[in-house]
Amino acid sequence: MNPNKILLIHGPNLNLLGTREPEIYGKDTLADIDEKMTQKAEELGLSVETFQTNHEGALIDRIQQAAGDCSGIVINPGAYTHTSIALLDALLAVDLPVIEVHLSNIHRRESFRQHSYTAKAATGIIAGLGATGYLLALEAMAGLLAE
Amino acid sequence: MNPNKILLIHGPNLNLLGTREPEIYGKDTLADIDEKMTQKAEELGLSVETFQTNHEGALIDRIQQAAGDCSGIVINPGAYTHTSIALLDALLAVDLPVIEVHLSNIHRRESFRQHSYTAKAATGIIAGLGATGYLLALEAMAGLLAE
Amino acid sequence: MNPNKILLIHGPNLNLLGTREPEIYGKDTLADIDEKMTQKAEELGLSVETFQTNHEGALIDRIQQAAGDCSGIVINPGAYTHTSIALLDALLAVDLPVIEVHLSNIHRRESFRQHSYTAKAATGIIAGLGATGYLLALEAMAGLLAE
Amino acid sequence: MNPNKILLIHGPNLNLLGTREPEIYGKDTLADIDEKMTQKAEELGLSVETFQTNHEGALIDRIQQAAGDCSGIVINPGAYTHTSIALLDALLAVDLPVIEVHLSNIHRRESFRQHSYTAKAATGIIAGLGATGYLLALEAMAGLLAE
Amino acid sequence: MNPNKILLIHGPNLNLLGTREPEIYGKDTLADIDEKMTQKAEELGLSVETFQTNHEGALIDRIQQAAGDCSGIVINPGAYTHTSIALLDALLAVDLPVIEVHLSNIHRRESFRQHSYTAKAATGIIAGLGATGYLLALEAMAGLLAE
Amino acid sequence: MNPNKILLIHGPNLNLLGTREPEIYGKDTLADIDEKMTQKAEELGLSVETFQTNHEGALIDRIQQAAGDCSGIVINPGAYTHTSIALLDALLAVDLPVIEVHLSNIHRRESFRQHSYTAKAATGIIAGLGATGYLLALEAMAGLLAE
Amino acid sequence: MNPNKILLIHGPNLNLLGTREPEIYGKDTLADIDEKMTQKAEELGLSVETFQTNHEGALIDRIQQAAGDCSGIVINPGAYTHTSIALLDALLAVDLPVIEVHLSNIHRRESFRQHSYTAKAATGIIAGLGATGYLLALEAMAGLLAE
Amino acid sequence: MNPNKILLIHGPNLNLLGTREPEIYGKDTLADIDEKMTQKAEELGLSVETFQTNHEGALIDRIQQAAGDCSGIVINPGAYTHTSIALLDALLAVDLPVIEVHLSNIHRRESFRQHSYTAKAATGIIAGLGATGYLLALEAMAGLLAE
Amino acid sequence: MNPNKILLIHGPNLNLLGTREPEIYGKDTLADIDEKMTQKAEELGLSVETFQTNHEGALIDRIQQAAGDCSGIVINPGAYTHTSIALLDALLAVDLPVIEVHLSNIHRRESFRQHSYTAKAATGIIAGLGATGYLLALEAMAGLLAE
Amino acid sequence: MNPNKILLIHGPNLNLLGTREPEIYGKDTLADIDEKMTQKAEELGLSVETFQTNHEGALIDRIQQAAGDCSGIVINPGAYTHTSIALLDALLAVDLPVIEVHLSNIHRRESFRQHSYTAKAATGIIAGLGATGYLLALEAMAGLLAE
Amino acid sequence: MNPNKILLIHGPNLNLLGTREPEIYGKDTLADIDEKMTQKAEELGLSVETFQTNHEGALIDRIQQAAGDCSGIVINPGAYTHTSIALLDALLAVDLPVIEVHLSNIHRRESFRQHSYTAKAATGIIAGLGATGYLLALEAMAGLLAE
Amino acid sequence: MNPNKILLIHGPNLNLLGTREPEIYGKDTLADIDEKMTQKAEELGLSVETFQTNHEGALIDRIQQAAGDCSGIVINPGAYTHTSIALLDALLAVDLPVIEVHLSNIHRRESFRQHSYTAKAATGIIAGLGATGYLLALEAMAGLLAE
Repeated sequence: MNPNKILLIHGPNLNLLGTREPEIYGKDTLADIDEKMTQKAEELGLSVETFQTNHEGALIDRIQQAAGDCSGIVINPGAYTHTSIALLDALLAVDLPVIEVHLSNIHRRESFRQHSYTAKAATGIIAGLGATGYLLALEAMAGLLAE
Repeated sequence: MNPNKILLIHGPNLNLLGTREPEIYGKDTLADIDEKMTQKAEELGLSVETFQTNHEGALIDRIQQAAGDCSGIVINPGAYTHTSIALLDALLAVDLPVIEVHLSNIHRRESFRQHSYTAKAATGIIAGLGATGYLLALEAMAGLLAE
Repeated sequence: MNPNKILLIHGPNLNLLGTREPEIYGKDTLADIDEKMTQKAEELGLSVETFQTNHEGALIDRIQQAAGDCSGIVINPGAYTHTSIALLDALLAVDLPVIEVHLSNIHRRESFRQHSYTAKAATGIIAGLGATGYLLALEAMAGLLAE
Repeated sequence: MNPNKILLIHGPNLNLLGTREPEIYGKDTLADIDEKMTQKAEELGLSVETFQTNHEGALIDRIQQAAGDCSGIVINPGAYTHTSIALLDALLAVDLPVIEVHLSNIHRRESFRQHSYTAKAATGIIAGLGATGYLLALEAMAGLLAE
Repeated sequence: MNPNKILLIHGPNLNLLGTREPEIYGKDTLADIDEKMTQKAEELGLSVETFQTNHEGALIDRIQQAAGDCSGIVINPGAYTHTSIALLDALLAVDLPVIEVHLSNIHRRESFRQHSYTAKAATGIIAGLGATGYLLALEAMAGLLAE
Repeated sequence: MNPNKILLIHGPNLNLLGTREPEIYGKDTLADIDEKMTQKAEELGLSVETFQTNHEGALIDRIQQAAGDCSGIVINPGAYTHTSIALLDALLAVDLPVIEVHLSNIHRRESFRQHSYTAKAATGIIAGLGATGYLLALEAMAGLLAE
Repeated sequence: MNPNKILLIHGPNLNLLGTREPEIYGKDTLADIDEKMTQKAEELGLSVETFQTNHEGALIDRIQQAAGDCSGIVINPGAYTHTSIALLDALLAVDLPVIEVHLSNIHRRESFRQHSYTAKAATGIIAGLGATGYLLALEAMAGLLAE
Repeated sequence: MNPNKILLIHGPNLNLLGTREPEIYGKDTLADIDEKMTQKAEELGLSVETFQTNHEGALIDRIQQAAGDCSGIVINPGAYTHTSIALLDALLAVDLPVIEVHLSNIHRRESFRQHSYTAKAATGIIAGLGATGYLLALEAMAGLLAE
Repeated sequence: MNPNKILLIHGPNLNLLGTREPEIYGKDTLADIDEKMTQKAEELGLSVETFQTNHEGALIDRIQQAAGDCSGIVINPGAYTHTSIALLDALLAVDLPVIEVHLSNIHRRESFRQHSYTAKAATGIIAGLGATGYLLALEAMAGLLAE
Repeated sequence: MNPNKILLIHGPNLNLLGTREPEIYGKDTLADIDEKMTQKAEELGLSVETFQTNHEGALIDRIQQAAGDCSGIVINPGAYTHTSIALLDALLAVDLPVIEVHLSNIHRRESFRQHSYTAKAATGIIAGLGATGYLLALEAMAGLLAE
Repeated sequence: MNPNKILLIHGPNLNLLGTREPEIYGKDTLADIDEKMTQKAEELGLSVETFQTNHEGALIDRIQQAAGDCSGIVINPGAYTHTSIALLDALLAVDLPVIEVHLSNIHRRESFRQHSYTAKAATGIIAGLGATGYLLALEAMAGLLAE
Repeated sequence: MNPNKILLIHGPNLNLLGTREPEIYGKDTLADIDEKMTQKAEELGLSVETFQTNHEGALIDRIQQAAGDCSGIVINPGAYTHTSIALLDALLAVDLPVIEVHLSNIHRRESFRQHSYTAKAATGIIAGLGATGYLLALEAMAGLLAE
């Protein structure tokens, strides 16, 4: 296990960031966010490995692999946040700190977006702060690992 | 983008059409429907590209690609209609007209089949008219594109 | 019974079409729709008799008469869609194919408009396609009668 | 179709058995269970083919193939039990006896784990008996096939 | 006020009795029932005036008139049973004994037919006994008036 | 089996009739009702056997015995109406006509008294007509047996 | 359009005012209220046209006519308040200020009377102030028109 | 007790009127409203004492004092309308006529604003008429006191 | 305590097995099942004591006695499964392994049969496998005792 | 009637007190509690008659007898608290003061234990104070009888 | 900390006791209750400090101070019982035994009064016994402290 | 207005941090957090003013003052998060960026703690990261102000 590697997981439709409903999700592309995260990780003495997929099963596969190869997970499960118990189970199964990030404030959106299954497996959750939320999550993760 | 190309998407278990519970879903196979759609498209000056998968993630992948390559989407999301917010998000993310089709009348079936997430991203919805519903959707799509 | 006559029923407030909330219901007047339907019927070898009322009871009366005098019903029950079990019962009582049409996509509107009692008596339902929805319903009806 | 072949399907996160929350799911690994099942099948004059995936779509694909190649399905759908109508539809579509198995007693867990969509397509359901539950399911399946 | 006159009210779609879903509602026509009621009334020293309409408003109008002209009301409100608070209010407003009759047993039907607004204004309710239920209601009414 | 014998079952607390909350349940004692029922039965060429218990299990025992010894059941299940699926199952298990009687109009009482499990096994239900309701039930039963 | 004419609409059962449950609805008759309203209107430089019906459809018809002939609507929809989406739609369709009046305080009554569909189309709502509520509504309407 | 004094109570955040979300609550400041109320009171032979606080407990304290010192209460409980049973109890405890006022039409807002605890202690409720609503409430109160 | 004795408990209406709704519950009588269980127990080196009653209280009494006299309980609580917290408490009170059996698949039946109170006290649950389910439960119990 | 006799009723599974889940229900046996109650009764000039059963029907029988032979009832209905309307009816039927006691604090337990039907027939309820709760109930009963 | 001091807290509107709805809350004033409590405390070798406020925040402040200065809390949270999670949190935060008292039986009142947040932090709860309930609570507290 | 001043608000019971349920809320005292925040603010070129109260009204008062005196609000509303619409309204009324912080992960706690009214007025929300969450919020606020 690489004690300094953080897995950064982006769920469904997040590959479209920057073009997809920018009034909700902001103008940063996923590449922008990943680059900022890489820089921030370096500052914190960490490395970041990023992964995006639209497939629930592929998210689970990747999370399972993380068990032996990362020290923490920063995840934006996208819409699977609200519907995937399988994803919750994968996060529960790997014994790693997890921070869940949402670009938008889910408490201000449709009621079906206000519930999170995956947050039940997370240490913390950050929502509504756009791309900044990821950077804060990384910072928090660094703190958790330092404990 | 091909202004005349319509993406025709078939969701989970629709590959079994003709053999699967024919008293509910009818005797037409998926190939039959795709052939009828191709003919109808020709009559309407359109072309149709068809795609079937049982994978929610693959549906999202394909819908995302449609953004740069089709003018509209006719989709039967199958059972993902009722459970997939991720599919809804994909349809919202691509800025194309969408018509949702169901072979059976979902208002007459189990209560968990009477709710549609994906319809929130659709212009129109046609249900209960069997294979004919697809042809009508194509006709309606032609009209939407002509506007 | 006239084997080629289709009864076209418009429920409450549909007489105001064209002026009533046109951003939701479109700019076609009811007369426009009825005229298009008459033409379409001719093309299909059918005739259409139209009926509009704001009275639930009058809708039931007219549907009951249809039993002996039409071969199918195309109906937009308007707001009674969501509240009238009596209308559902009338449609169940006459043994005719029924297609329910809505101008707007009810799945995108207030939650109290997302439920349909009357659709439980319909073969098919078409929603969100504006005036075109009626024409498609007529086409589908022609197909049902030809079977 | 092989009249003696039983398809044994393991859903999401079951590949982690033995290490994942052993106080809930027990210490047997999936390989242990598959081996026990193979032996038990032999005793019963059956063969077992096993399949594990974290992908809902892959589960559906595999179930569909079973139609022409197995005589029965023993399945632990994992978390998809509670959320997947598409999986239910796949099981309904193949005309085979199905027995659903859960390692833990779902009636003692969170309320969102107490509901099963897939069980609506099953002949029987066995829960809470750990790895033994699979062996009992195989035994029951042998009985069903003998009828 | 005629102390011996009972108003017998039939709600929506009951004019179709005998032909409408006879496996649910029986083979007696409304005329059959009215005739049996007239005979029974004579035996009991009462007279019966019957009224059928599909219009909720007409039901209310007729009930209001009953205040000054009948001694009791036997009513089958049909589907308005489940949806009409206005009908409930009309029955509450006239100070007469009311007995509600249903041909079918509403407790065995769809859940939306198991609730009765109008029964809140009734002394008694008889359901599931077909045409006989009306005769029993008349008998009960005779008893109530004799008290 | 005695083709003319009707089993009259009184559920919990009905032995207190006449003294128990008479403003709700009336002044007739259970003995009064049983005597009226015996007379009425004679007039109808039937005999009545009565049974009262406060024990749910004893109700089930008695109903099961009825299978081989009566032609119909008139039952007031008292409060078990609202809570006992076991009683429902007993009534479903014996293949006899059942009429459920309630002294008070359950639709006017607390919401937990407005639901009936047992009515799902009944042909008919009579409520709110006091002791008269039993006599009407017997009359209706005579009619059912004559068919 | 008459800029000073206000349409005063009374819904079902309000014709019985003064005799119907006076402890809830007060002792004023509808004629009393209409007379007071006429006087008040004169004082305010307005005229009032009144309309009462028990028919939901007739209410809709009359509201639709108001579009071209009145400047505002004061309405007590009676029990249709709680059940009629069609009435809501009619009020939304005419582009006039609407004030909804209830004689009794609906928040103190049965829960099914605490919800208002029609209030969604109203500027204001006044409840529980008896006949005075109408006069206040007229006063408020005068203010709205003066703006 | 001063028979002509009316207590005018403004709940939380109403001190911000005029600047707070003016598209919902209007441009009048609280001082404007209080001044209009003072004038109106004089015209009606009444006096008004006003009180505003953001503290639920202070509202209860002030209402309790009103018992011995005012003849009626006009109150806009602001957001406590929807959440405070303690405020309801205070209003029930003082034996005075109460009229509840809301600037906006609560039936058109979020569902959590459509329920009122405090209205259960009020004679009347006026909503959606802005500052005018207060003046109408005072007028109504004058009428109640004159009775 | 007899370390090899298993208590086999049959709840309400199970004495009718074989005749009661055989399309749901199968053709085996209770005596058939008990005999099969006795044989199976012998094979497993166990003995079985059987008990059937329709009385909830008698089920509780018998379960309590089991504490000092058996090593495990196999129970089909019949309809009390869904309604009896008292039965749940009895099973919790005796510190024995419990396996709950249902002849039919409760997930395919009415919604009120899909919930189990008693399963909260069980180690495992087997449903839908008819009489075989009991034998499997005994086998599983043998395994639990051997641990 | 014995004016000083109090009936002390213990519901299902309370005979196991002291051994049953002592971390919830305490270490006192039922005999301990009954003895303390007898002593306390003497001090208060009362006598206590105790009754325990696991049978709902037997509880009802005993409560009914109390009508003519005791002055008050102290009852711990055990799990029937949450499910038995029949028990509620029995308590309502006898015109005696009732105090309901629970050993544990039901508000801290599973949601299905937080509702009490029987408390609707009680003057008071004491929960969470273990065996002491019974003694307090007796003290309160003495006070009620002295009034 | 004073090991013998008990804090007696009275929530909103309890200062009005004796005059506020005496048919519900009794005729004792708060001073009467406090005096009785002081006497009772002396008999038990305890002292009582009383506190009443209508302010939720002041209740929290006072409870927090109790941590260092009392041995137990007897509290009637009034209407905050049903709405205040903040009060629950304050009671959880101080590590003292808590007994919750209600003058009326909350299980017999409006449904919104049947739920208690604060009871989740209490050892015991006593309701419906009027002023006596406080004295019993003190007695119980003495017992808890003696353990 | 001070463009660099951030208001840091702590809601009810947060003054007890460090001693109150430290397994949930951590070991940092409020003073520790405020000190860390002051330091962090300096690093970011900001100043922080802190405010703690247990009074809902005082929270509202302080938030209202912030309108003219701060540039942003970081708030942990404690238990008022879940119950206070008045607090939501105060936050909506002041036109400032708001970040809501929770020490614990509310998605893992009781269901009544999983809903947030106040988050509807927040830009972002950070939960579950203990005292670090405040520092991240300040960092995010600096970013928002820099935009």
